[in-house]
Amino acid sequence: MNDASGERKPPVGLTLRAVRDLVGGRVEGEGSLHVVGVAPVDEAAPDEIAFLALKRYARYAGSCKARCFLVSSEMLKHLPEGASCVVVEAPYAALGIVLERLHPQHVPPSGVHPTAVIGQGVELGEGVHIGPYVVLDDGVRVGAASVIGAHSVIGRNSTIGGGCRLHPHVVVYHDSVIGAEVILHSGTRVESDGFGYTFVDGAHRKIPQVGRAVIEGGVEIGANSTIDRGSLGDTVVGAGVKLDNLVHIAHNVKFGALSLMAALSGIAGSTRVGKKSWVGGRVGVSNQLDIGDGVRVAIGSVVMRDVPAGVTVSGSPARPHREEMRKQARVGRLPLLLDRVARLEDEVRRLSGAS
Amino acid sequence: MNDASGERKPPVGLTLRAVRDLVGGRVEGEGSLHVVGVAPVDEAAPDEIAFLALKRYARYAGSCKARCFLVSSEMLKHLPEGASCVVVEAPYAALGIVLERLHPQHVPPSGVHPTAVIGQGVELGEGVHIGPYVVLDDGVRVGAASVIGAHSVIGRNSTIGGGCRLHPHVVVYHDSVIGAEVILHSGTRVESDGFGYTFVDGAHRKIPQVGRAVIEGGVEIGANSTIDRGSLGDTVVGAGVKLDNLVHIAHNVKFGALSLMAALSGIAGSTRVGKKSWVGGRVGVSNQLDIGDGVRVAIGSVVMRDVPAGVTVSGSPARPHREEMRKQARVGRLPLLLDRVARLEDEVRRLSGAS
Amino acid sequence: MNDASGERKPPVGLTLRAVRDLVGGRVEGEGSLHVVGVAPVDEAAPDEIAFLALKRYARYAGSCKARCFLVSSEMLKHLPEGASCVVVEAPYAALGIVLERLHPQHVPPSGVHPTAVIGQGVELGEGVHIGPYVVLDDGVRVGAASVIGAHSVIGRNSTIGGGCRLHPHVVVYHDSVIGAEVILHSGTRVESDGFGYTFVDGAHRKIPQVGRAVIEGGVEIGANSTIDRGSLGDTVVGAGVKLDNLVHIAHNVKFGALSLMAALSGIAGSTRVGKKSWVGGRVGVSNQLDIGDGVRVAIGSVVMRDVPAGVTVSGSPARPHREEMRKQARVGRLPLLLDRVARLEDEVRRLSGAS
Repeated sequence: MNDASGERKPPVGLTLRAVRDLVGGRVEGEGSLHVVGVAPVDEAAPDEIAFLALKRYARYAGSCKARCFLVSSEMLKHLPEGASCVVVEAPYAALGIVLERLHPQHVPPSGVHPTAVIGQGVELGEGVHIGPYVVLDDGVRVGAASVIGAHSVIGRNSTIGGGCRLHPHVVVYHDSVIGAEVILHSGTRVESDGFGYTFVDGAHRKIPQVGRAVIEGGVEIGANSTIDRGSLGDTVVGAGVKLDNLVHIAHNVKFGALSLMAALSGIAGSTRVGKKSWVGGRVGVSNQLDIGDGVRVAIGSVVMRDVPAGVTVSGSPARPHREEMRKQARVGRLPLLLDRVARLEDEVRRLSGAS
Repeated sequence: MNDASGERKPPVGLTLRAVRDLVGGRVEGEGSLHVVGVAPVDEAAPDEIAFLALKRYARYAGSCKARCFLVSSEMLKHLPEGASCVVVEAPYAALGIVLERLHPQHVPPSGVHPTAVIGQGVELGEGVHIGPYVVLDDGVRVGAASVIGAHSVIGRNSTIGGGCRLHPHVVVYHDSVIGAEVILHSGTRVESDGFGYTFVDGAHRKIPQVGRAVIEGGVEIGANSTIDRGSLGDTVVGAGVKLDNLVHIAHNVKFGALSLMAALSGIAGSTRVGKKSWVGGRVGVSNQLDIGDGVRVAIGSVVMRDVPAGVTVSGSPARPHREEMRKQARVGRLPLLLDRVARLEDEVRRLSGAS
Repeated sequence: MNDASGERKPPVGLTLRAVRDLVGGRVEGEGSLHVVGVAPVDEAAPDEIAFLALKRYARYAGSCKARCFLVSSEMLKHLPEGASCVVVEAPYAALGIVLERLHPQHVPPSGVHPTAVIGQGVELGEGVHIGPYVVLDDGVRVGAASVIGAHSVIGRNSTIGGGCRLHPHVVVYHDSVIGAEVILHSGTRVESDGFGYTFVDGAHRKIPQVGRAVIEGGVEIGANSTIDRGSLGDTVVGAGVKLDNLVHIAHNVKFGALSLMAALSGIAGSTRVGKKSWVGGRVGVSNQLDIGDGVRVAIGSVVMRDVPAGVTVSGSPARPHREEMRKQARVGRLPLLLDRVARLEDEVRRLSGAS
């Protein structure tokens, strides 16, 4: 963590007391200790505060090079005798706050790079940054303070809200609507055509995809993910949704506000996912389904039926997690069952002989 | 559906009679009603014709803002009393025709953008559009009326047929052969190296990948999909194939004409997939397999053996769908079986005591 | 295999004897035969040497147009009577050597394309090639003889080792460390943000991702794959690792040296994968796990527990392959078990009547 990057080398550091003032909790030991960065307990340098929140990493506390720790109350007992630390109840929230202070995000200067290609009728808000080789097609609007990374291409009449961050190599097709404070990572494709054909005269005839993709405010989408436009009507990614890398959202999906989906997962056409749901990694959800609010889908599941609100499902085909666990347990007990049946056969043979 | 986009606001509309003349079927109610667009029944505006073909959406017909409908004969009964409509037998084919008329695709003007980098010996057909920052390496040929989107990079001596549409940020490596009327969505990679190594002297030594990728006419490939070049010989995506987003075709795969594959699925090296097959989403097909013509692979399956022509498979490992269903049913009946065995044990114990 | 590409048409060919001298093994038949290329036995032209190493392709030997073969000793018996050939024990290693000689990789000339955007303090080694529209941000270092393909974007203070090959459209975020002799295919994203949030005040608050991505020497990463930066500390892809297309490596993963992972697979946050492991295609590995050295994970598996060194796992959830096979066999025998239980019930009914 000691390279030359402006981003990694914070301008000023913090004392433990200052950390405590930022995140709450309490100081133990030397409150005057000064730190310039945060690092995991197994990698921290002497001038950093070591973060410890998971038991799995407790074994590194003894040999940690850092002189102080940001630690959850549960992990406190694993610290070396008399170690200085800030103790908190919600370690990840605290971590976020310290990181924002000690590792502030680099914001490129406002302005339009001379190599950017700007179409007719493009409207740019205050303080936007338009990077090298960006292409903004006719009628594009970009809100105040948004950053459009190098090589990104925004199609005709698409709207990008204020305070957005598009990393390099994002492509947004025409007529998309992207809200405020949206983060799109490199390689994200917004509003590509959905997978819609009819078989006519011995060939698959493309059904024109004319709907939109609507990405609401506060959404973050990972690298190389794809969000298809609606075939008719809109594909909607709800406010505050977070999608990981290599995720696929098909045409006309409505993905509920504040839901999350991990990497390599996909939602097929026209399926509705409720609010505050969690979809694990490498999951497939079939088309035309209704997935309720607060649903949880375990890693690797294949969802082929509607799921009521609040239910956790797993397996392939996915079923309520408890049922799936019981099923797995029963299959695991099959050898025992085979033995019991064999014993019964012997006994019955004996009895038949006897009678 | 009411923004300022040239693509979304059609130049002229159609009367219901004109729609009927385009798609066949019959008019009910006011044939003179005028519509400027098509929309799903749950999102249609008053100046649009509402599309209804799935029972799932029938519940929206009553509250639909549109004054008329494009409807399948099965769904007709779900329309409000006396609603005007065009009734058809093949609703999706009809939808495609109306969309092409009311929502015509935007075609960028022909010409080469001044920022495009054109190599030596490049041949461009009549009326091609070469977008901003496109790179065409030496010896590239692009057929008449093809559109190469912004930032796309075409490698040495690759050939793109006529009437193709490459969306922004497509990369085609050298020596690829792409047929006519091919659509490649943003982020598609054609002819990247396959995954081929030999373990020599304690390391994985790369086997040079020198084959080609051949994409035949009428193919459409979704966003961020990858088609590897052959290691030796060719990888072939057959005529009229449609691939969804985030799909992987490994080296030397032969993917049969008119077959389809949904998102997040992959075919491993040297596997042959027959014609008119259907591969669902999130499927994995192992290497060196022969998958017959007209095979159907259910969502989420893992195919580890050859599949004869015409068979539908599902599960992991995939087996004929009927077998898989029976297997699942049997596992579901395990609790019952456990009860029966327990009863037998009691009864036999009783008999043993008696005898 | 006969197009105009400099890459495909080798300057000079080789005699069979020369091939033998390169790869070892022995010549049978005419050692003076001259070949200009290598091709698979089912696609070889008369001026090429046909490669045959798999029984599956033996059926093509009889009708092969080539006049000679590169063949493994096991396959020798499948060649036509009196065919000329070079016979080797390790056919793929031999193939690699011949390919490097007959199909040498095209290396673009050194130099910086006039359209490249070079930031302040950028250091370029001897003989580098910087392609059209490349963006190298401030403080980037590129080692000698590395090739940075068109449109690639390298973020602030990132380091690329010597002898690397970045194909077009690679994006590397700031502060990455990429070793020597690394190959990154088109669309690879290195050091995008990991998927890290805490739920605060009714919304998912982003935990700043401030760690690095470290790609060690000799790594190859396939098209459209994504490697996240560490949240804190580093994500590490070990020396000599080979990753296929559309692969996901989450934040803080440590992926051991010389391990391989096939397409569409992903490793979740903070999981450690040992050295010389093999992860098949379409696999998901859960977060916070320890996967030992030399582990093998079968295609389509979902790994949800630690795996000890040297173990092969399969299934979902993954378990030791032998157990999984036994489980599958038992489930397959369920119909038989049901019959046995039914017979027992009859017999016991009979006995009960008798007693």
